[in-house]
Amino acid sequence: MAKIAILGFGTVGSGVFDIFDQSDFQRKTGEVIEVKRVLDIRDFPDHPKKEIFTKDFNDIVNDDEISVVAETMGGLHPAYEFTKALLEAGKCVTTSNKELVATYGPELLRIAAEKNVRYLFEASVGGGIPVIRPLSACLQANKIEKIAGILNGTTNFILTQMIEEGSEFEDALSEAQRRGYAERNPAADIEGHDACRKIAILSSMATGDFVDYNDIPTEGICDITLNDVKYAEKLGSAIKLIGYAEQTDSGELYACVAPMMIKKSIPLSGVRDVFNAVMVTGNYLGDAMFYGRGAGKEATASAVSADVIDMVKTKTSAHPLIWEEGKVKMLNPAEKEWSYFVRTTADKTKIAELFGNVELISGVAEGEVGFVSEKMSEKEFAERNAQLGGAAIKVLQAND
Amino acid sequence: MAKIAILGFGTVGSGVFDIFDQSDFQRKTGEVIEVKRVLDIRDFPDHPKKEIFTKDFNDIVNDDEISVVAETMGGLHPAYEFTKALLEAGKCVTTSNKELVATYGPELLRIAAEKNVRYLFEASVGGGIPVIRPLSACLQANKIEKIAGILNGTTNFILTQMIEEGSEFEDALSEAQRRGYAERNPAADIEGHDACRKIAILSSMATGDFVDYNDIPTEGICDITLNDVKYAEKLGSAIKLIGYAEQTDSGELYACVAPMMIKKSIPLSGVRDVFNAVMVTGNYLGDAMFYGRGAGKEATASAVSADVIDMVKTKTSAHPLIWEEGKVKMLNPAEKEWSYFVRTTADKTKIAELFGNVELISGVAEGEVGFVSEKMSEKEFAERNAQLGGAAIKVLQAND
Repeated sequence: MAKIAILGFGTVGSGVFDIFDQSDFQRKTGEVIEVKRVLDIRDFPDHPKKEIFTKDFNDIVNDDEISVVAETMGGLHPAYEFTKALLEAGKCVTTSNKELVATYGPELLRIAAEKNVRYLFEASVGGGIPVIRPLSACLQANKIEKIAGILNGTTNFILTQMIEEGSEFEDALSEAQRRGYAERNPAADIEGHDACRKIAILSSMATGDFVDYNDIPTEGICDITLNDVKYAEKLGSAIKLIGYAEQTDSGELYACVAPMMIKKSIPLSGVRDVFNAVMVTGNYLGDAMFYGRGAGKEATASAVSADVIDMVKTKTSAHPLIWEEGKVKMLNPAEKEWSYFVRTTADKTKIAELFGNVELISGVAEGEVGFVSEKMSEKEFAERNAQLGGAAIKVLQAND
Repeated sequence: MAKIAILGFGTVGSGVFDIFDQSDFQRKTGEVIEVKRVLDIRDFPDHPKKEIFTKDFNDIVNDDEISVVAETMGGLHPAYEFTKALLEAGKCVTTSNKELVATYGPELLRIAAEKNVRYLFEASVGGGIPVIRPLSACLQANKIEKIAGILNGTTNFILTQMIEEGSEFEDALSEAQRRGYAERNPAADIEGHDACRKIAILSSMATGDFVDYNDIPTEGICDITLNDVKYAEKLGSAIKLIGYAEQTDSGELYACVAPMMIKKSIPLSGVRDVFNAVMVTGNYLGDAMFYGRGAGKEATASAVSADVIDMVKTKTSAHPLIWEEGKVKMLNPAEKEWSYFVRTTADKTKIAELFGNVELISGVAEGEVGFVSEKMSEKEFAERNAQLGGAAIKVLQAND
């Protein structure tokens, strides 16, 4: 009999409770798993197991029977202090809290290693999709050369509404809010901050050392218009918000979050609605993609629960994950080469002078043309485009 | 320092050798991994490490220094006898040999459990794509309700050529042979036997007990014509060879291998060329998909090597996988309900009499129409279609 606790009885935490309350895990784990305690600041007087709820963290950290804890509170504080105390008390912890892993990952992993317990975070990226585990598996025999992921379901829903229903950005955002996919304050999603935390975690996995999300240039989808979507259609492409990371030949890491135009022959372009997908390129493996529901109560709870069961089975790791800080050298983003989609009201002569003989696409908006540039560094593109004043979107190519 | 051996120096085995010969795994595993022995019946007099080659299996099974063996010989014999002897000698074994796992899996897993060693087979399904591991992870907290996979790269290449190039089946097959994707005797691929072994392995993973591939009705792609492909296009669908398994509410397993029509809004339909993909539906997770190169030297070797490294790190499993034989109850395939695409030269009145008010698609072949039936049992469909004499293809729907 293993006893566990859940911190936070919100969407994910209550989903984790339901999984262990309703299902029979005995066959799978060889052990019965009992949720002994749930921490929440709210009262749940009508809950059938109201006696297990507590507002006092000490009831969990000081309970020697509890060996595994699922932290599903979200936010940095007190999730950080609680997690640290639990690991120091020799308990295994799993979290769905990307903010926490992206901020305090190195310290929490180090404490877990010192205390010979495990700190897992499958649900922090890609919700219910197994991403962290298969990435670890790929990593065993591969150098991960590239990661490109649709990491935020809210923005993917908004872009899908724009592409398939012809909705304007603001209307698609309202629809996402109406359906509960977007918060009333949607900044974390639409400005790309959520995707940025997630690509930072994936980059840390790929490099083996800590990648600080503050070092990752991040652009959201607020400036994407229906006209951009129409140009994408004409180019046989779709616009997606991509978290991107690449290990260069010189050993530097480049990472960014940005909306990108993606050819329809690339599988990421077909990921619709609130689904997420992570494309991983390994030097031996080639391209592999992991796809599924990136959010939602049951999917995310399923990933947290998988971690719980894993830690109930195996409480220690012979080769613990350590992310050292400051070891990853970041490429200057201005040096990274991309192709760009540009739309501009400048005249043909000016465009040709700056970008050469590019194919011009017209018929989307009066007095405006669009084109795809050759690959060039971000710096060079910015210089040339300054003279055009065009709106630009990065183009993700199969070989980027 | 861990010492390993490789059985069979063919495409996959030599790929595994290259990975351990060229890469630095010290950081990843905390151990140096050395390929001490390679078993092959052929001579490799010019190989830079020719001294490690042997034709005598005893050089491996009797070598106490060798703790992990990669079996990449293929075929049932002597791979079965060798694997059994290695496990009984207390060595961990990994294999890319789907035939072996699908045939002798229960016995080999039982011996591994008894000897407290591990028997892994990530590369037996989906080549380099992590499929078995993420499926195990999903399984921790989910009942796997459904699996639908494009499990054979050769047939997917052939179908892609038919869809995108308008090639006839025979020409697409020749092209696949020319490129080395298909064997000179392509029966195992095009008749669906390869996919059948793989869906049997995935079904065993999902149910936790052994599913015999002989119990899985299997249909290949030899009868798919360019006209079928054109009808699919008109229906906004694509034809793919699908390995399918489903756990029914009554606790029975239904499995089959068959070409299926798949709507383009379903991600499996967009899997092109030699790529494989496995869609898994969990009761909490919903749909998740794992996608990548299903074959090829480096991708498959990468999966075998990941297993090797995993076993070098952890030689025993606290909760070994056991597949009991004869425990899975199979649904009578005649009872499984599908929608069918039918093309027929019968007249409208006859079609309406048998299948009701279905929408008829014409303009593909002279004197012929196509339609999609309502969902009905395979038995009922066969009875009705016997009176039409139509050619039929199962339709995979999002909610099947």
